[in-house]
Amino acid sequence: MLSSKPAISAELGQTDDITLGQYLLDCLKREGIQEVFGVPGDFNFTLLDTLEKQADIRFINGRNELNAAYSADAYARLKGIGALITTFGVGEMSACNAIAGAYSENVPLIHIVGTPKSKEQREKKLLHHTLMNGDYDVFRKVYENITGYTVILTPENAELEIPVAIRIAKEKKKPVYLSVAIDLVMKPILRHNLQPTDEKKTKENSLRAAVSHVEEMLDSARSVVLLIDTLTIRYGLQNAAMRLAEEMHVPVASMMQGKGGFDESHPLYIGTYGGPFGDKEVCGIVEGADCVIMVGHVKSDVNMAKFTAKLNPLNTVTIQPQFVIVSEAEYENIYAEDMLDALRKSGFRQRETPSSKGFPYDVVRGGQDELIAASSYYPRIQQMLKDSDIVVVETGTFSYGMSQVRLPKGANYIAQGGWQSIGYGVPAAFGACLAEKDRRVLLFTGEGSLQLTVQEISSMLENDCKPIIFVLNNEGYTIEKYLNVKSENQKYNQIPAWEYTKLADIFGGIAFTAKVRTNQELDEAIKQAETECKDKLCIIEMVVHDPMDAPEYLQRMRNYLEEQEKLQN
Amino acid sequence: MLSSKPAISAELGQTDDITLGQYLLDCLKREGIQEVFGVPGDFNFTLLDTLEKQADIRFINGRNELNAAYSADAYARLKGIGALITTFGVGEMSACNAIAGAYSENVPLIHIVGTPKSKEQREKKLLHHTLMNGDYDVFRKVYENITGYTVILTPENAELEIPVAIRIAKEKKKPVYLSVAIDLVMKPILRHNLQPTDEKKTKENSLRAAVSHVEEMLDSARSVVLLIDTLTIRYGLQNAAMRLAEEMHVPVASMMQGKGGFDESHPLYIGTYGGPFGDKEVCGIVEGADCVIMVGHVKSDVNMAKFTAKLNPLNTVTIQPQFVIVSEAEYENIYAEDMLDALRKSGFRQRETPSSKGFPYDVVRGGQDELIAASSYYPRIQQMLKDSDIVVVETGTFSYGMSQVRLPKGANYIAQGGWQSIGYGVPAAFGACLAEKDRRVLLFTGEGSLQLTVQEISSMLENDCKPIIFVLNNEGYTIEKYLNVKSENQKYNQIPAWEYTKLADIFGGIAFTAKVRTNQELDEAIKQAETECKDKLCIIEMVVHDPMDAPEYLQRMRNYLEEQEKLQN
Ligand SMILES: Cc1ncc(C[n+]2csc(CCOP(=O)(O)OP(=O)(O)O)c2C)c(N)n1
Ligand SMILES: Cc1ncc(C[n+]2csc(CCOP(=O)(O)OP(=O)(O)O)c2C)c(N)n1
Repeated sequence: MLSSKPAISAELGQTDDITLGQYLLDCLKREGIQEVFGVPGDFNFTLLDTLEKQADIRFINGRNELNAAYSADAYARLKGIGALITTFGVGEMSACNAIAGAYSENVPLIHIVGTPKSKEQREKKLLHHTLMNGDYDVFRKVYENITGYTVILTPENAELEIPVAIRIAKEKKKPVYLSVAIDLVMKPILRHNLQPTDEKKTKENSLRAAVSHVEEMLDSARSVVLLIDTLTIRYGLQNAAMRLAEEMHVPVASMMQGKGGFDESHPLYIGTYGGPFGDKEVCGIVEGADCVIMVGHVKSDVNMAKFTAKLNPLNTVTIQPQFVIVSEAEYENIYAEDMLDALRKSGFRQRETPSSKGFPYDVVRGGQDELIAASSYYPRIQQMLKDSDIVVVETGTFSYGMSQVRLPKGANYIAQGGWQSIGYGVPAAFGACLAEKDRRVLLFTGEGSLQLTVQEISSMLENDCKPIIFVLNNEGYTIEKYLNVKSENQKYNQIPAWEYTKLADIFGGIAFTAKVRTNQELDEAIKQAETECKDKLCIIEMVVHDPMDAPEYLQRMRNYLEEQEKLQN
Repeated sequence: MLSSKPAISAELGQTDDITLGQYLLDCLKREGIQEVFGVPGDFNFTLLDTLEKQADIRFINGRNELNAAYSADAYARLKGIGALITTFGVGEMSACNAIAGAYSENVPLIHIVGTPKSKEQREKKLLHHTLMNGDYDVFRKVYENITGYTVILTPENAELEIPVAIRIAKEKKKPVYLSVAIDLVMKPILRHNLQPTDEKKTKENSLRAAVSHVEEMLDSARSVVLLIDTLTIRYGLQNAAMRLAEEMHVPVASMMQGKGGFDESHPLYIGTYGGPFGDKEVCGIVEGADCVIMVGHVKSDVNMAKFTAKLNPLNTVTIQPQFVIVSEAEYENIYAEDMLDALRKSGFRQRETPSSKGFPYDVVRGGQDELIAASSYYPRIQQMLKDSDIVVVETGTFSYGMSQVRLPKGANYIAQGGWQSIGYGVPAAFGACLAEKDRRVLLFTGEGSLQLTVQEISSMLENDCKPIIFVLNNEGYTIEKYLNVKSENQKYNQIPAWEYTKLADIFGGIAFTAKVRTNQELDEAIKQAETECKDKLCIIEMVVHDPMDAPEYLQRMRNYLEEQEKLQN
């Protein structure tokens, strides 16, 4: 489990008495981390003081710890890994939701917590930020449940444990938790004589068996389809998957959580597969195929359209990061990249390949004077997207509609497809802005979700970020109204009406803002935002007339839920 | 461990097939809970639907779960108990910090979580809001660490477990965690033939031994002092403690975390004891006493002035909720109320009793044209406080200064003295407003802390709450600058400048606002707010000229920290 790379300080040419804090930061830098998110507190001072002395890595204050962790999550999705520093107890406990979210969503995140002085911990002193029971291990125990690894750092174990933690984060794509006592951050670490460990490798015979099993299946297959899911993105398999699709000449769809994992401008791309809730044509092609190759799949209710998706396991090849399932046989110790390459070389090529006859939102609908509605604004959004945009989508009606919007080349799509914690959107867009300073970041959020973490717009302004923020104002938690088929007009789905276009004013910044009600107003606001966003953050509030307006996907889901409800009564 | 009270539905005259959800709500109502805080989500719909049908209990939407939990915490401090409903995973994980805080601060809070359908849990379906690993027990396991009790409710165990959980919350003054699957909420519960259990009682011989040990100590004592700490408040021992003080005729001081536990307008009250950081006179009286009786004490760094407080254990009687320590002898199974009563009857009466020569902020200082500073605004705050005010104080320089402000009769003081999580203030003030609709609520918060949970001002406006909010604008995390003696001008202690007086505008409400810089402006703003607060929420932004302006308490603490730092180098 030890790091396969040589000791770091040597590599960086530093003296041997490197401090724990410095070593930790060096490790983060080596992973390409240039920004660390977090909130200060008196138990992480020495960590932050060390950080502030560095030229090549910055601390980015979040407005609170949950938000900072969300930002770090989005940052990690774009840069491969992210980091967060919080303070003992109050800080770390505020970030639980985001860390559990990173776990659920397979995002490698290094959560570093500054804890009280070792002596005071040993003596079980009743310090502030404790549970007042002398238990200094309790928060780490909390984190054991929602991370891939936890460790209490010491000068003695730092050189062993930090690389292990980072390696686990990267290999398992999970958040990890490292705590360090405030007095140990400045202590020189003990050097170990580390031997590089062997890289893990695919088992050749296992790979051969899997490939020949797939070949057998392909032999009798008349229509093959490739389904891209979330782990394709997390494990960086996009290119390997694309090469396979091209070589096999098969249509490609993405799952709901896999959106962004395949170039949606590619001729082989047919759209998002959403079972009976999604596009009918895509559903027909996918469910009609006699061989479905799934890459990086998570069998979630979201991906499987509440488990109404009809994918016959016997016809399915599931290529996972470290194993493969063909029909019902599992082949272990196969790295996905090797499997994708091997399949590509197997020579299968489909003659006729159905291509998409069009995407749900290809045609711009709705007259200029008409009020905006899902049917009119999604096509306009699709139209405005540009190559290499970063599209951040919050959970809500937007996440269902946006899943059906075709993305341009090189775009990233950031959403919590599975964890679905509202409030993620704003801080995630902030994290995205910092991760990719030269790319355009667009955020699509409901007004309900925005309210949870609104203060991160302040951090955007503070850090000169200029995303375009679309706030869908439909007077409450519309998605929740769709999902509850047992009652009507729930008061609890109502929310206060805010002045979303004035937000930048109170945060002490300037923004281009527009509040639109008609298609024409939306068109104009988009047009203007496209230039304004070069200098300013942009907020476009989209006021919809009908609070129950929603994309078709959701309407079909609602119909299904209503039927289920009737069947049960 | 079973409930000592008869089954509830019978008591309320309902039919026997009461649903789990209804039973749960009846239990909450019986505890006097009229408002339940939380955020909806698709796994708590049936709970909220049941709740919305009730006439005598309301659901109060928080802007996010952390905030809702903070509000419930303050509500519980005033009403004796509070409740929170969140949704599985995303909701509950957002509230961890507040629940851990309630644990640390001994606040009984019922956290109810709506979870997915039992069948889907059993089948380990990969639903949204899960960690995508099929583990449906993981969030309860997280909560095991930070609550006094956790239970998964079923129709079979509800009648047994709900009373147990509530009883533990009330007896241990800890948060408890109850989860219930969405489909079980509507199921009728199984009735049990419950036998009332015996109330726990004080052990008479233990009490006698403790009292005679104290009497012995008092025999040779020339100066006795009573120290009131936080558990006095939580366990409702204020009256018993006051009667004891009056009978013994001894001076009373409160500890930092015990503020509000003794009527500060009482002639026997001498002030807050803060060791060498606090008032010198109080320190002299307390540390000079040859018998110190402490009620409901928590030996925290905050209470013990970073453990510089000099309280000789040999001279100390510690009366805890369920045991007593005299000198170094521990007497178990004594309820505090019984001990306080017994001591009162023991006949000790001190002849001469030093009374306070004045409190630190008795005299209003600072000319009208002068810029506000700690030395000038704390006296003005003390002056404006009225009987029965609820004073909510956020962690920051304010919490140190306010600890020295004398409270009027009947005032409540709400602060996280030990847990000290910033962001608590605003939602706590909201919870206080709902708990005590006819009393004036004042919030004292730094601008840094306010930023973490600002959206709860929206909830205040939405619910017609009219607190007076003092926002101390000192350009950043001033307290943190005081606490870090190792570095200077930390960038991480800077925060963006907001327009605090415009907050109500964006939240779609009206407020009286003032931004003050001089003492005169502060006086006028206070005067106006005193009338305006009858109709409106009030925000007074106090802009201090010197970002390092702080109450004396903090300056003394800083000096101590600097000395310690020097000694270590
Ligand atoms: C942290 C958290 N709390 C609660 C929920 C439950 N929830 C899911 S979507 C939603 C409402 C979103 O409303 P909004 O952002 O206005 O979008 P809309 O559907 O109205 O377009 C809620 C409350 C959640 N997913 N996450
Ligand atoms: C949730 C949480 N995060 C971080 C901290 C560390 N912390 C304690 S006080 C404080 C700053 C408070 O600043 P402000 O509210 O502006 O008050 P001031 O001291 O400036 O008057 C911080 C960051 C904390 N206590 N709780």
